[in-house]
Amino acid sequence: MQIGMVGLGRMGANLSRRLMRAGHEVVAFDINTGAVNALAQDGAVGVTSLDELIARLAPPRAIWLMLPHGDNTENSLQFIAQRLQRDDILIDGGNSHFHDDVRRAAQLAERGIRYLDVGTSGGVHGLERGYCLMVGGDASAFERLDPIFSTLAPGRGDIPATGSREGFDRRAEQGYLYCGPAGAGHFVKMIHNGIEYGMMQAMAEGFDILRNAGKSSLPEGHRYDFPLADVAELWRRGSVVSSWLLDLTAEALAENPTLSRFSGVVEDSGEGRWTVQAAIDEAVPAEVLTAALFARFRSRQDHTFAEKLLSAMRYKFGGHVEKPA
Amino acid sequence: MQIGMVGLGRMGANLSRRLMRAGHEVVAFDINTGAVNALAQDGAVGVTSLDELIARLAPPRAIWLMLPHGDNTENSLQFIAQRLQRDDILIDGGNSHFHDDVRRAAQLAERGIRYLDVGTSGGVHGLERGYCLMVGGDASAFERLDPIFSTLAPGRGDIPATGSREGFDRRAEQGYLYCGPAGAGHFVKMIHNGIEYGMMQAMAEGFDILRNAGKSSLPEGHRYDFPLADVAELWRRGSVVSSWLLDLTAEALAENPTLSRFSGVVEDSGEGRWTVQAAIDEAVPAEVLTAALFARFRSRQDHTFAEKLLSAMRYKFGGHVEKPA
Amino acid sequence: MQIGMVGLGRMGANLSRRLMRAGHEVVAFDINTGAVNALAQDGAVGVTSLDELIARLAPPRAIWLMLPHGDNTENSLQFIAQRLQRDDILIDGGNSHFHDDVRRAAQLAERGIRYLDVGTSGGVHGLERGYCLMVGGDASAFERLDPIFSTLAPGRGDIPATGSREGFDRRAEQGYLYCGPAGAGHFVKMIHNGIEYGMMQAMAEGFDILRNAGKSSLPEGHRYDFPLADVAELWRRGSVVSSWLLDLTAEALAENPTLSRFSGVVEDSGEGRWTVQAAIDEAVPAEVLTAALFARFRSRQDHTFAEKLLSAMRYKFGGHVEKPA
Amino acid sequence: MQIGMVGLGRMGANLSRRLMRAGHEVVAFDINTGAVNALAQDGAVGVTSLDELIARLAPPRAIWLMLPHGDNTENSLQFIAQRLQRDDILIDGGNSHFHDDVRRAAQLAERGIRYLDVGTSGGVHGLERGYCLMVGGDASAFERLDPIFSTLAPGRGDIPATGSREGFDRRAEQGYLYCGPAGAGHFVKMIHNGIEYGMMQAMAEGFDILRNAGKSSLPEGHRYDFPLADVAELWRRGSVVSSWLLDLTAEALAENPTLSRFSGVVEDSGEGRWTVQAAIDEAVPAEVLTAALFARFRSRQDHTFAEKLLSAMRYKFGGHVEKPA
Repeated sequence: MQIGMVGLGRMGANLSRRLMRAGHEVVAFDINTGAVNALAQDGAVGVTSLDELIARLAPPRAIWLMLPHGDNTENSLQFIAQRLQRDDILIDGGNSHFHDDVRRAAQLAERGIRYLDVGTSGGVHGLERGYCLMVGGDASAFERLDPIFSTLAPGRGDIPATGSREGFDRRAEQGYLYCGPAGAGHFVKMIHNGIEYGMMQAMAEGFDILRNAGKSSLPEGHRYDFPLADVAELWRRGSVVSSWLLDLTAEALAENPTLSRFSGVVEDSGEGRWTVQAAIDEAVPAEVLTAALFARFRSRQDHTFAEKLLSAMRYKFGGHVEKPA
Repeated sequence: MQIGMVGLGRMGANLSRRLMRAGHEVVAFDINTGAVNALAQDGAVGVTSLDELIARLAPPRAIWLMLPHGDNTENSLQFIAQRLQRDDILIDGGNSHFHDDVRRAAQLAERGIRYLDVGTSGGVHGLERGYCLMVGGDASAFERLDPIFSTLAPGRGDIPATGSREGFDRRAEQGYLYCGPAGAGHFVKMIHNGIEYGMMQAMAEGFDILRNAGKSSLPEGHRYDFPLADVAELWRRGSVVSSWLLDLTAEALAENPTLSRFSGVVEDSGEGRWTVQAAIDEAVPAEVLTAALFARFRSRQDHTFAEKLLSAMRYKFGGHVEKPA
Repeated sequence: MQIGMVGLGRMGANLSRRLMRAGHEVVAFDINTGAVNALAQDGAVGVTSLDELIARLAPPRAIWLMLPHGDNTENSLQFIAQRLQRDDILIDGGNSHFHDDVRRAAQLAERGIRYLDVGTSGGVHGLERGYCLMVGGDASAFERLDPIFSTLAPGRGDIPATGSREGFDRRAEQGYLYCGPAGAGHFVKMIHNGIEYGMMQAMAEGFDILRNAGKSSLPEGHRYDFPLADVAELWRRGSVVSSWLLDLTAEALAENPTLSRFSGVVEDSGEGRWTVQAAIDEAVPAEVLTAALFARFRSRQDHTFAEKLLSAMRYKFGGHVEKPA
Repeated sequence: MQIGMVGLGRMGANLSRRLMRAGHEVVAFDINTGAVNALAQDGAVGVTSLDELIARLAPPRAIWLMLPHGDNTENSLQFIAQRLQRDDILIDGGNSHFHDDVRRAAQLAERGIRYLDVGTSGGVHGLERGYCLMVGGDASAFERLDPIFSTLAPGRGDIPATGSREGFDRRAEQGYLYCGPAGAGHFVKMIHNGIEYGMMQAMAEGFDILRNAGKSSLPEGHRYDFPLADVAELWRRGSVVSSWLLDLTAEALAENPTLSRFSGVVEDSGEGRWTVQAAIDEAVPAEVLTAALFARFRSRQDHTFAEKLLSAMRYKFGGHVEKPA
C-alpha cells in the first residue's frame, strides 16, 4: 500500500523503514530535509512540502503523522486536513490526548475525512521487534489500512498463545487492535504508559532497597552487598517479575552496575499525567501510578518548597536546625 | 544426589518431582501421610518421621525444609538441627525473614552444621518452568548442592542473552544464584515479592481505569467500552509492559472478562510487609511498594475506622451526611 | 451596604444573616420560595425572580452567587450578567474552578462588569465564627466591597498575633484577603480544601492505628485498648497536632466512641480533585493530598476491579484462592 | 513533690523549670555539668552522679529520664534500676519504642519497681504552654505522681470545652492522660508524631502548589503570584485548616517568605517510622502517614538509585538521555 509519513524522527523513520521492507510505498516529509534524504536513500519517496506530499499520494490517501504532541501535531494536522478530500484517512500516531482525538474526529467527519488515533509502542527496538498498535477512530478506515497495521505490528512471534481466546479479536495476537471510537487508541496507549511508569517505579524501588542494604549505618549482621546485575539476570528466569523492563534492567546493570552514567533526573511524557487525570475523572484510586509520576517530579528538583516548609515548621515547634545533606 | 524434603505441599512436592525427574533421590516427609504416599508413588522414599528421614540420609546430609513460615519452619528446623552432625546442610526454602536466617546460621555454625536460605519463586508453574532460586548462607554448602540447584532452576531456555555479562556469575543465567551470607537469599526473595506487589498493583490500576472509562457518569464523547482481554493480549507483543504478569492477566481476562469469579479480597504474604520495613530501616523511599501493600490491607475491610472518622469530621464542620455506597 | 444574594442554602442564608446582623441590606433570591420567605422573616428583602432582584438593587450593584458549582452557578451567572451594567459587581462565592473565573472575568470585563471569585470557608459554624474569605478578581471591586467582607470575616478575635507581620496585608488578620487576579480566590480555596483532605486523612489514619492496636491478632503484651475520645481531648492541649479538625474529632468521639453512626462512605467535592490536577500541571509532587483523595474514592466502592485483578493474578501464578472478607 | 530529673537538654531542663516554678523540688543530673549548674541556679538540687541523685531522693523515689532514645536511655535506665528499691518509680519521658517499655516494665516489676512511659509533647514552647503528657504503665504510680503531671500539663486554659464529655476522664482536659499499661504512653505519642508528620506534609504540599502557581511554564492567564505569608495568616481565622502548625507556618512565612533560610533537608525521629511499622503490624492502610515519612527520606538524598534506574530503563527502551536538573 501507499502511505504518507509526516515526521521522520526516530519513530517516524523506523515505522517507514519497517513498512518499506515489506513492500509498502512511503511518501515521506519532515521539516528537516536531512531526515527526508536519509529515508529516501532507504527507498522512500522524499518530498519537500506537505502540499507535495498530498499531491504525490493517490486518493483515497492515508497520511500518518508522527510528530511531538502539542502544537506540532495540531498545526500540521489542521494544515493537511484542509487539503484532503472525502475518504482520505488521517492518522495521528503520536501521543495526543484522547480529548483532542474526539474533537478532531468530529471536525474531520463533517467533510468526510476519516481519522484514526494510533497509540504506538516500540521505542528504539520497534524496527526489529515491531510496534504494538492501539487504534481508535473510524472502524472502516482501520479495516482499509489493515495491511499497514499488520506489517508494523510484531506478529504472533514465538510468544506462547493465551488459552481461552476463542471468539476474541485475533488481531490482538498479532500486536494490533481496534480499541473503539475516536480517542480509544490514545486512551489505551495512555494507560499503557501509566502502567509502564508504575512497573518501572516498582522495579526501581526494589533495586534501591537491595542496593542500600549495604550501607554502613545498618547493623553488621544484616548488611549485604548484593550483586545487582546478577540478581536482575536471575529474576529473568522463572520468577514472577520477569518482564521486558527487567530484561532492560539486567542489561543496564551489567553494563554499569552503579548506574553512575545516569543522572537520576527523570522526565515524564504527558501520558503519565493524563492517566492520573483520567483516574480522577473516573474516581478510580490509582496510588501506584500517581506515586510513580510524583517520583519523577521530585527527581527534577534540588529541594522542594514543601521540604523547606517542613524544615521551617520543625524549627518553629522544636528548635530543630536541619543540616544540609 | 540424595536430598531430604520436609513439607510436601504444592511447592515441596513439585520441587521433589522436578528433582526426581532428573535422577536425584528424594527422601520425603510430611505430617500428612497422604502427601508422603502420593510422592512415594512418583518415586520418592517416603518416611513417617523426621527421625526416620535423618536415618535414611547418608552423611553429609542435605535437608530441604519447605514449610509455611513461622512456627512450622522454626520448630521443625530446631528439631532436625539437634539430630544433625557436622557438615550436614539444612536448607530453608520457605519464606522466612532474613533476620531468622542470620540467627539460625550463627546458631548452627557453632556445631559445624551448614545453613542455606533459599528464596524460591515459581508457583504452580515451577514444576515445568523451573524455579528461580535465590540462595544465601554457607558458600561451600551452595557449591556442594550445585547439582540440586541447577536441576531445580529453569536453565537458560530460549530467553535472549543479556549483553555485557562477561565476568558476571554465569549461574544467574541458569536461574539460580548465590546472593551472599546468611539471609541474603531470603532478602532477595523478599524484594522480589515486594516488586511483584508493585507491578501487580500498577497493572491492576491501569485496567481499573480502562474498565471505568465506560461508566455512565462520564461525558458521552469520552466514554469507552474497552475490550479488556484483547488489550491485555495486544500488549503482550512489542509493548513496554510485556511481562509474565501481563501474560497471566491476558489469560484471566480471556477466561472471565468481568473477573466476576474473584472477590477482590487480597491476601498478603509476609514479604510485602518486610520489604517496607527494610525500606524504612534503610531510609529508602518506597511509595509504590508500600501503596501496593496498603491496597491489599484495604481490600480486606468493609470500611475502615479512618473512613468513618472522615465522615464524622465532615458532619461536624459541614453538616454533611454521607450516604451508604 | 446593599447586596443581592442568590442561593439561600445553608451557606447563602447564613452569609445573609451575618450581613443583616451588622446592618447591611440583603435582597435575597432562591428558586425555593420557602428559603426566601424564611430569610425575609429575618429581615431580608425577598424577591421572586432574578429580574426583580436586579431591579431592587441600586446601581452600581453587588450580587453574590452562592450556588452549587457547575451548571447552576454558570447559568445563573450568565443570566444575571446579561442584565447588569457597567461597574456592577458579580461575585461567585461558591466553589468554581479557577479556569472558569478567568474565562468569566474576561467576558464580563468587555462590558465593564466587575467579577470577584470568593472562596468561602466556614461551614455550619460560619454564622457565629465568621467566614474565611479568599478573594480574587477586580481589585477595585474588592475595595468597594470591603464593608461586606469585613463583616463576614471572623475578625481578629482572641487568636494570638503572628510576629513579624509589619508590612503585610492587615486584612489577612481579619480573615479576608485579596489573593490576586481572577481565579486567585478560588485557587487559594481549592488548595485550602486540598490541605484539609490531607490533614483529615492524617488524623483518620492515626486514630485507625490506635483503634486497631486492640485487635486480637496482635501479640498479647503489645495490645492496647485506647480511650480514643480521651486521646483526642488530650491532644487539644499542648500538642503539635492541635487544630480545629482535632477539636471536631474530640467532639465526634465523645459523642460516639465507635463512630458506629457513620457509614465510612466519604464524598469528595471538586476541590480535592482540582488540587491534584493543579499539582500535576505544575509538576509538584503531592503524595499526601492525592492519597487523601484516593482514600475517599476507595471508600465508595465495595471492591475495585483492580483488587479483583490482583486476586486473578494470584490465582494464576500461585493457585491462591482468596476468601471473601 | 520531690523528683529526680536525668538529662537536662532543652526538654529536661524546661520540664524541671516548670516543676520548680510550681514549688516542686527537682534533683537534677546530666553528664554535662554546665547544664547541671545552670539548672541549679534556677533552684534545682544539682548532683554530679546518678548515685548521688539516688541518694538525695527520699524513698519511695520518682526519677524521670529525659534522654535521647536508644542506648542513652537504656543504659541509664538499667544503671539506675539496679540501685532502686521496691515502690520507687522510674519514668521514661523520652521517645522510646513501646516494645522497650513492655520489656522494661516486666523486668522492673519483678523487683517491685514501678515503671511509667510518658510521651511528652511540647517542644520549645512547653515551658510556657505546658506539656501534653501521654502516660502508660503502672496505674498506681500514675496516681501517685498526679501532682507532677498536673503541673507539667497545660491545663484547661481558654480552649473551649468539648461537649458530651460526661463520664470521660477529666484529666484529658488538663492535658495529661493515663493511656493504658506499659507502652501505652509511648504508643500514643508515636501515633501523635505520625499524625504530625502527615499534617505537616499536607500543609507543605499545599503551599508548594500555591508557590509554583507562579512559575513561568504555566499558561499566562492561569499564573498567580500568591502572597504566601498572608494566605497562611488568613487561614488562621475561620478556616477548616486552622491549627498550631498553621500558626507556625504563618510565622515562618512572615519572617522569611521564600524560606531561603531552610535547606529542605528534613530529619525524621523514630516515631514516624514506628508508626508505619505499627500500621503494617495491624494491617491498617496508612498511605498519608507513610508518604509523609518517605518525603523526608527523599529530602535527604541528591538522587536515589531508583531514579537512576528509571533513567537507565528509559535510555534502554526509548533512547532517552536525561539531562541534569
